[in-house]
Amino acid sequence: MTEPLPQGSVIGIVGGGQLGRMLSVAASRLGLRTHIFEPGANPPAGHVAHAVTTAAYDDAAALRAFGAAVDVITYEFENIPTEALDILQGCAPIRPGREALRVSQDRLTEKSFLRDLGLMTAPFSDVPDAAALDAALGAIGAPAILKTRRFGYDGKGQARINRPEDAAAALADMAGAPAILEGFVAFGHEVSVIAARGPGGQVACFDPGENVHEGGILRTTTVPARLSTKQTTDAVLIAAKILNALDYVGVMGVELFVTPGGLVVNEIAPRVHNSGHWTQNGCTVDQFEQHIRAVAGWPLGDGSRHCDVVMENLIGDDLDRVPELARQRDVALHLYGKAEVKPGRKMGHANRIVRG
Amino acid sequence: MTEPLPQGSVIGIVGGGQLGRMLSVAASRLGLRTHIFEPGANPPAGHVAHAVTTAAYDDAAALRAFGAAVDVITYEFENIPTEALDILQGCAPIRPGREALRVSQDRLTEKSFLRDLGLMTAPFSDVPDAAALDAALGAIGAPAILKTRRFGYDGKGQARINRPEDAAAALADMAGAPAILEGFVAFGHEVSVIAARGPGGQVACFDPGENVHEGGILRTTTVPARLSTKQTTDAVLIAAKILNALDYVGVMGVELFVTPGGLVVNEIAPRVHNSGHWTQNGCTVDQFEQHIRAVAGWPLGDGSRHCDVVMENLIGDDLDRVPELARQRDVALHLYGKAEVKPGRKMGHANRIVRG
Repeated sequence: MTEPLPQGSVIGIVGGGQLGRMLSVAASRLGLRTHIFEPGANPPAGHVAHAVTTAAYDDAAALRAFGAAVDVITYEFENIPTEALDILQGCAPIRPGREALRVSQDRLTEKSFLRDLGLMTAPFSDVPDAAALDAALGAIGAPAILKTRRFGYDGKGQARINRPEDAAAALADMAGAPAILEGFVAFGHEVSVIAARGPGGQVACFDPGENVHEGGILRTTTVPARLSTKQTTDAVLIAAKILNALDYVGVMGVELFVTPGGLVVNEIAPRVHNSGHWTQNGCTVDQFEQHIRAVAGWPLGDGSRHCDVVMENLIGDDLDRVPELARQRDVALHLYGKAEVKPGRKMGHANRIVRG
Repeated sequence: MTEPLPQGSVIGIVGGGQLGRMLSVAASRLGLRTHIFEPGANPPAGHVAHAVTTAAYDDAAALRAFGAAVDVITYEFENIPTEALDILQGCAPIRPGREALRVSQDRLTEKSFLRDLGLMTAPFSDVPDAAALDAALGAIGAPAILKTRRFGYDGKGQARINRPEDAAAALADMAGAPAILEGFVAFGHEVSVIAARGPGGQVACFDPGENVHEGGILRTTTVPARLSTKQTTDAVLIAAKILNALDYVGVMGVELFVTPGGLVVNEIAPRVHNSGHWTQNGCTVDQFEQHIRAVAGWPLGDGSRHCDVVMENLIGDDLDRVPELARQRDVALHLYGKAEVKPGRKMGHANRIVRG
């Protein structure tokens, strides 16, 4: 059993975006400090962190100095280069551990891992080349979606194949990157479970949220989700199975499709997750504090909610709605302090409390 | 009407303690940055601020540089030296304004201001010297309490006079500082109203909380307080009267004694207040965000609560209870990251949500 990190300890966070920002705030509530490692200038997390290292992921000296200055290392995104992880793991514990990163950095590895656990996934097939794509389309059928195995997020690195004739163009979109073909799942709606596991193996899940996407980007999460009691139980058991299999430490987002045949795992993210932002205003311990508690070896919050919440992402020009949202009685704003508004960029979110 | 400060604006906060820390976190939720001015090293607010100036209050150059780097100036404590304020007011708006500081920096001025508003206070009398103390004791009677006019907090700078013979020793305790004598008020319990006023004159109050002190330090605040509907209305009207009279901008803490004859104003604090910490887990917009909204010219939250809460201060060795508190389901921890535990030092607080 890991000793809890004492007051004043430093959590190293790789990545300085909005997730790192909200992790940093949560750490402060526990009397812990944060140190952000981020290649980009003026990161949102830097506004609320005790220290910031601005350096590239191939800057070994900066990585070592960062690692030496912190008590534990966590991250806000899963695409940290392997070489950087190799350096960091010599400095301080990395939580969640490298197995979770290995699995989630590659869609093929992730899907295979989930299938080997006996969980349902969309049909998928490895696509190393054009011949494999033809074979995969034959097995899975169209429509289907071709995705790069690595470095995809928010709908990037994806090409839809509606008819077999689209295959060549879709493969060209991958620009030579290894890819997988995924079939579509006929689902009613998508939910996600934000689950946490401590170093001692304790697991706690937040209530599942129901997600609506637009253009590949999460638009809203509503809690409670439309799920039967059995479906809720299944969702939590699926999440726990994944966390235990990875000997996971921290918070994970598990996206699930709700189908007549049961819950199908869409994808997992080894970090705090956009669909868990509602917990900031619905729970005593939110997903960010839960993650910090887990990586710091503190007891986990139990995840139960005291309010129903609808979380809405504020994307790009949605930021213009802030003055009006700020006037609404039950809306809690969470803005990210990003210097520039761009189409598709997540600028903040609004949690609307639904009074009972 | 003041234009709301846009995203990325910088709030200057004078004072780097726990109140500045929690103000800084609240500012981040609105996409605003903070810059802390604090003479002491390693201030708690510095762990979550974008910038920190470490300099003395008589360092004119540092004050000017701080003032030039921020869009508005606020503060977490009321005892800022007048000379420092004179410099700062040439740089950026100071909110709450100087009249609020002038009134609250001096107990005699404050009590006179409240009395002139037609509000009830404890009986009080100016004590410039020993003869005045004798006269004051004759008028007010014993027991009474002698307090320095300036720079008192958490029971410091106070001496109780149980019998007339105690007078000389009490006066000696003041060490020559100007003082006032206050009579005791026979009250059932103490409540406080955390009230906010925006630059446009909008006023919003949080639900009154009921306070319990130990050794001159706030121990717990419970919401709702034991108050009749009429008492609650009176409490809110008293607070609004004070804020309007000062043309106040920001959050103020107003402590009230509940007596059979009505509400007696104990003291006012021109800042966020310990007895408002419960709002962090009971309200959509907490007192810290409310203060930032007011000084930044944003719309105020309405102050209504969605949960009942009991706030308990963690003082000195109470920090040893953190591991046990962290295991309790409805307890939200807010720790201040102070480097050293001292008896009587506020190290954090715990908000216990009371489920309906």
